[in-house]
Amino acid sequence: MGSRRPDRRGFLRGGAALAGGLTLGAVEPALGQKTKSGEFIKGSEEMIAYGERSRFVNSVRIQHPPGGRPSPDAFGLVFHVAAPLQDSVGMITPSSLHFVGTTRGSFIPDIDPGEHRLMIHGMVDRPLTFTMEDLKRLPSVTRPHFIECAGNRSRSQHKTVQETHGMTSCAEWTGVLLSVLLKEAGVKGGGSWIVAEGTEEVKGASSIPMAKAMDDCLVAYGMNGEPVRPQQGFPLRLLVPGFEGIFNSKYLRRVKVVDRYYMTYNDYGHLRQDPDGAALGYQIGPKSVITFPSGGQQLSGPGFYEVSGLAWSGGGAVGKVEVSTDGGQHWTDAEIQGTPYRMAHTRFRHHWNWDGQETELLSRCTDELGQVQPSRAQVTKFFNVNRVPGQDNSIQPWRVASDGSVYNAIS
Amino acid sequence: MGSRRPDRRGFLRGGAALAGGLTLGAVEPALGQKTKSGEFIKGSEEMIAYGERSRFVNSVRIQHPPGGRPSPDAFGLVFHVAAPLQDSVGMITPSSLHFVGTTRGSFIPDIDPGEHRLMIHGMVDRPLTFTMEDLKRLPSVTRPHFIECAGNRSRSQHKTVQETHGMTSCAEWTGVLLSVLLKEAGVKGGGSWIVAEGTEEVKGASSIPMAKAMDDCLVAYGMNGEPVRPQQGFPLRLLVPGFEGIFNSKYLRRVKVVDRYYMTYNDYGHLRQDPDGAALGYQIGPKSVITFPSGGQQLSGPGFYEVSGLAWSGGGAVGKVEVSTDGGQHWTDAEIQGTPYRMAHTRFRHHWNWDGQETELLSRCTDELGQVQPSRAQVTKFFNVNRVPGQDNSIQPWRVASDGSVYNAIS
Repeated sequence: MGSRRPDRRGFLRGGAALAGGLTLGAVEPALGQKTKSGEFIKGSEEMIAYGERSRFVNSVRIQHPPGGRPSPDAFGLVFHVAAPLQDSVGMITPSSLHFVGTTRGSFIPDIDPGEHRLMIHGMVDRPLTFTMEDLKRLPSVTRPHFIECAGNRSRSQHKTVQETHGMTSCAEWTGVLLSVLLKEAGVKGGGSWIVAEGTEEVKGASSIPMAKAMDDCLVAYGMNGEPVRPQQGFPLRLLVPGFEGIFNSKYLRRVKVVDRYYMTYNDYGHLRQDPDGAALGYQIGPKSVITFPSGGQQLSGPGFYEVSGLAWSGGGAVGKVEVSTDGGQHWTDAEIQGTPYRMAHTRFRHHWNWDGQETELLSRCTDELGQVQPSRAQVTKFFNVNRVPGQDNSIQPWRVASDGSVYNAIS
Repeated sequence: MGSRRPDRRGFLRGGAALAGGLTLGAVEPALGQKTKSGEFIKGSEEMIAYGERSRFVNSVRIQHPPGGRPSPDAFGLVFHVAAPLQDSVGMITPSSLHFVGTTRGSFIPDIDPGEHRLMIHGMVDRPLTFTMEDLKRLPSVTRPHFIECAGNRSRSQHKTVQETHGMTSCAEWTGVLLSVLLKEAGVKGGGSWIVAEGTEEVKGASSIPMAKAMDDCLVAYGMNGEPVRPQQGFPLRLLVPGFEGIFNSKYLRRVKVVDRYYMTYNDYGHLRQDPDGAALGYQIGPKSVITFPSGGQQLSGPGFYEVSGLAWSGGGAVGKVEVSTDGGQHWTDAEIQGTPYRMAHTRFRHHWNWDGQETELLSRCTDELGQVQPSRAQVTKFFNVNRVPGQDNSIQPWRVASDGSVYNAIS
């Protein structure tokens, strides 16, 4: 079951012909793209200072679920904001399109970074308070990491990959390892958990095992080369790589070292509340989804297509991704973009000649630990219902109809 | 001369104390960062669709040179737009802050991607015209690459790293390898150069050796996870990794296979116009610059600082970066972020305890070919003048005064 990669010549000829796509031999003088003097944008001072995208690009995030629902304390509407994965290329999600998970709907803390403080306290030898300037003087790291909401799953009523999987995104994060701060403070014997708390009415607090806190948690002030965006926790977000999104506390202001798992507002979705069992349930994946072709997209006819998608795992780096273009009868190793990073989106690609017959496209991720993404049948059998509670990392099937339309094959 | 990395404990104590920075032991209740009900931004529909940065973040690009100069045909003002490297973190330059090189000042072609075509013609078996949809069906790659203007250099009148080095940036580019398109078209014997032409009045055309075109040139439609920005050539830009910025034709509409080097508008800056000698002069670097602390920044007093900067080379990946904190008397290997990519910015970091004495900070890049970034004295001696023509990849010295102010040490 090795990779069957066509030669890099011949995408346009023979069996791999781009039917109806290319203008072979008949070369137009390409007048269509000629720009006349009047067809220029006169750049403003604002555009020189900070550029924007083309007016022809209109990929946007969507409210998820549509309309939202009232927050538990009626403070506002609760909804998430899903990223347009159907338009994604590469590994990075643009910060403007990064998914937003929130218990506050559209209310965003408006924090002056000059006033912001991070306190390390609790069971420590030397409680510390850091300004943003203090943090930026300390040793830093830059790492790409995904964040995914645990509720990111496909339902039969979801039509697009934005609806099924849009609550995951990946950015290049920069900041100080939490272990550096904890070592400065000096963790006392018996300090086995931390509680990370953000500057929100509901605090956005998370209990995290000390082993994880000391491993790879990141107090991030940078995101994709600039400060963390307000919707992502400006000026400071705790990254808890590979754990469910809700653990990645925004607007981070306090880290308390404690001797047990603390229940917080953020625990409402968890099934296991005992310290021993909870940690395992935190971890996302392994998971993958084909972003092109995906639900709602339209193929223009038979011929060559590059099937492309994203894979990730809370267990580490992606090991391999397999693609099936015949509903799971045959699987082929996809091409992996570059060297996969730990707990980061990984782009995969697969060369496909569509014969014009109805079929189903699937992708399956195996992570570096050997964990394999399950089928939907396996997951629903495990839970003995056709509705998966909590995390659902099952394989997403996209059906391609003979007219080239693509839709969610989950019934 | 190995790396001298302090233990990850003790940044705040003893010799490595953050003087005047941290509030040790005296833990405030951190009231400063408490957000009251009124201190929220009520998100708009626009913010849900496409997020923006915090109102407290005001890092911007600058016009370079200030005021610009008239274009040769008086069509407009010519100026470049320099990236705020002093605020950079990680490897990625945000697309909104990516430097802009132009011969048209602020005039930007306003292209409808539905109308855009790319023609491959000249000495080929099968001339081809591609729509954007055609291109997106073909096998793609994603790679981080820097683009740098050949005129990116430090002068004594430049105060900040934005002025000395702001005309380089790095993005994650996605597109089709030019070799895929050339192989589809079939290059005829004797086709030894290409001329790449963009949709601009001045065409923005570049002559590129066939060996480079077939190696790693990329017809890019994606940038940092979304379509290429208008100021970077929307909808299509030719990436010529490691070559001077002007070769990376924007608004790419034609690639003509030819049998010789063609003179174009873009050649105005080149000294060597013979095909054999020209290629070598195209390549950038090896180069590096410290972005913190850099000119115009202010240290708050003696103590621990992380010195951080960017390194890159047109010759391939960065091999190592050395840092000197005593004006070049001693050099230490800096910490390199992750695995350096070919022709991409690479973040380096160095732990430094400043004793409060006046000193000079330097960085020196060696690329994977073993090419070493020269000192300014070496470069000016080579050119026998104190003004370097063309490319200048010499070491940038930053002077730290005893009051903590930092300035350009080039006289």
